[in-house]
Amino acid sequence: MFGPLNHLRVVEGSAFVAAPLAGLTLAQAGADVIRFDPPGGGLDYGRWPLAPGTGRSLFWTGLNKGKRSLCVDIRRPEGRELVQDLIAAPGEGGGLLLTNFAGMPWLADEVLRARRADVIKLEIAGNFDGSNAVDYTVNPAVGLPAMTGTGGPNAPTNHVLPAWDVACGLTAAFGLVSAVLERARTGQGRSISLALSDVAFATVGHLGMLAEAALGGVDRPPSGNDLYGAFGRDFPTADGRRVMIVALTRKQWSGLVKVCGIADAVTLLEERLGADLSEEGARYLHRDAIAALVAPWVAARPLAEVAAAFDAAGVSWGPYQTMTEALARDPRVSTANPLFTAIEQPGVGSVLAAGSPLAAAGEARSEARSAPSLGADNDAILGDVLGLSSGAIGKLYDAGIVAREGE
Amino acid sequence: MFGPLNHLRVVEGSAFVAAPLAGLTLAQAGADVIRFDPPGGGLDYGRWPLAPGTGRSLFWTGLNKGKRSLCVDIRRPEGRELVQDLIAAPGEGGGLLLTNFAGMPWLADEVLRARRADVIKLEIAGNFDGSNAVDYTVNPAVGLPAMTGTGGPNAPTNHVLPAWDVACGLTAAFGLVSAVLERARTGQGRSISLALSDVAFATVGHLGMLAEAALGGVDRPPSGNDLYGAFGRDFPTADGRRVMIVALTRKQWSGLVKVCGIADAVTLLEERLGADLSEEGARYLHRDAIAALVAPWVAARPLAEVAAAFDAAGVSWGPYQTMTEALARDPRVSTANPLFTAIEQPGVGSVLAAGSPLAAAGEARSEARSAPSLGADNDAILGDVLGLSSGAIGKLYDAGIVAREGE
Repeated sequence: MFGPLNHLRVVEGSAFVAAPLAGLTLAQAGADVIRFDPPGGGLDYGRWPLAPGTGRSLFWTGLNKGKRSLCVDIRRPEGRELVQDLIAAPGEGGGLLLTNFAGMPWLADEVLRARRADVIKLEIAGNFDGSNAVDYTVNPAVGLPAMTGTGGPNAPTNHVLPAWDVACGLTAAFGLVSAVLERARTGQGRSISLALSDVAFATVGHLGMLAEAALGGVDRPPSGNDLYGAFGRDFPTADGRRVMIVALTRKQWSGLVKVCGIADAVTLLEERLGADLSEEGARYLHRDAIAALVAPWVAARPLAEVAAAFDAAGVSWGPYQTMTEALARDPRVSTANPLFTAIEQPGVGSVLAAGSPLAAAGEARSEARSAPSLGADNDAILGDVLGLSSGAIGKLYDAGIVAREGE
Repeated sequence: MFGPLNHLRVVEGSAFVAAPLAGLTLAQAGADVIRFDPPGGGLDYGRWPLAPGTGRSLFWTGLNKGKRSLCVDIRRPEGRELVQDLIAAPGEGGGLLLTNFAGMPWLADEVLRARRADVIKLEIAGNFDGSNAVDYTVNPAVGLPAMTGTGGPNAPTNHVLPAWDVACGLTAAFGLVSAVLERARTGQGRSISLALSDVAFATVGHLGMLAEAALGGVDRPPSGNDLYGAFGRDFPTADGRRVMIVALTRKQWSGLVKVCGIADAVTLLEERLGADLSEEGARYLHRDAIAALVAPWVAARPLAEVAAAFDAAGVSWGPYQTMTEALARDPRVSTANPLFTAIEQPGVGSVLAAGSPLAAAGEARSEARSAPSLGADNDAILGDVLGLSSGAIGKLYDAGIVAREGE
């Protein structure tokens, strides 16, 4: 099984998306990720969506798959000390803390480094100055809702995906492993901070969008479902389905023209417009005229026929489908895809769960494992990692320093 | 300067977002990333947005900052051999290939491994079966456009951000560094594949959205700009601005209630509804009633007053702003944020550019560097890495195997 990080032990103090996704990414690459939570669960323990019937959070169980759970009362000094001991526990792959609990004195660098000099701590914050921000407050400030849909700045459309949380979590996983690689060469620990809004602003910068606004002095207007800068649009089929068609490259464009039988019409259009539609930018400028040629062909055919013709011609396209539709008919969202495994998640039931999308040739994929119940791994962690006796562990339960789900 | 990967040399064969972003992420963590491109540039060399006047791609220059460029004709055997030699060149941090050129025989595992046994190759594909897909065709299949905005499945709204490309690129950077860490311990090379659509389906799975659809049997309806599962909505201010307000946690909710002076009204509302609005799910179910209490308070005040009151009360909120507005007034998108540097980008001019969002305590941030012109680093790469003499390099130019921008 491909588990390049299977020598690492990461302590995770987290809530919501970014830090838990970072921990999940590390766990699915083989790391032993120990998430600590207070009795009753942290701030994200009841986050929607919930499982029908039981009310168990599908969000929490989704983001904490394959981690171990330590349920500990971190309001009390004894609880904090257990977590500090766990972070500082010996071992080449230990000394790693991943957290979005920003600015907690008991997890401060100097406190941890006094216990283990080569600790690597990666702390996610909202903004670079330490102030708070969440995905849903960052994205409006980045400017994308004003470009999404058709409403513009006065009727912005928020994204549904917490895309910046996802990007921040993956950046955190990358940053932590990079620091581990550095430590393996130099022996040096690190305290790394990562701001959610920095990830967002950096990304739109990398995509050229900030420079476009700065140099042009104007904002890109929203363009509905059109692909910016080339040809891409959604079209309804004869059987009430809908497809997204993209002609970003010359090859994709010529495939589309050929399969739709519009070569002559495109030539006439180019003459009329004085444009060369083999240029991606020209396709964007004249997208309505192109769409008028493509639409009748798609509208005259059911999806199956469109799909077969497009696939044969190398057209870049995809069907629109809802999540229930994807689950019902797309093999990419089924156990036919080695990404997915049907797992039994306590409190939820049988669910399709994704493992790591990273697949190594000649090795089995890292399969998804269920999320732990709170405190499920207390005894193993306290015994095996911290070396506590069963008597000492019993006293921690008696004192309410550690607990299990429902206790 | 924090550069944990400054001993690595990565060869990148790429186009568009995911692979170039992976390479950028590695470069901004210190790696020597050598992107190879054909004379005249690859498929993404003219991707919009473009710089006014020069027409230089702001997309390309944004995603290839701080890399070195080898401009080589890979249609010819001699060009391919140079790239193969470069991938296989000796050194502890060499032997690394990052690419989205899927299925190229001359970059096949066995070809590379014959030259260097411990090569690590990370190849990004569209789908897990090797078939093609791009961000804009994947997202409709994932189901998010049907949940975005207010249109639903019959009037879906595409996202503007290529979020899956971003997530895939960051996963690729993580996967490559994880494999390097493994190789440092075991000496073993790897051939890793990563599918764009796997990243997308895995992510909506991790967020609990697939399980919600599977277990509930219905699709989540679109809910405009509302935050799912708690309280979050956009509100206009007295001075024509707009803010996103989020009350995900109890603390955020109590802060909002307090600052808006609606505690009594909320109590009355709870009695009338028979609901406890301190529960996040209840806030979602009764979001319209809550919004009716919050809206007049926001609408009666200009943004500056709203901002000051919200910040003092610890409310989670953010302003809507377009990119030109963000550049004009948000210090997070300026050189007041150590993330950003004003750089001189040849062919573009002076632009604000983001470095790595990963900041290590006690170290200078890795600053953004400009993107190379095509072939700018030919001589250094061929001479220093491959050990070619200036005479041999001259012959490669004469034969058109390597070239520089505009040649």
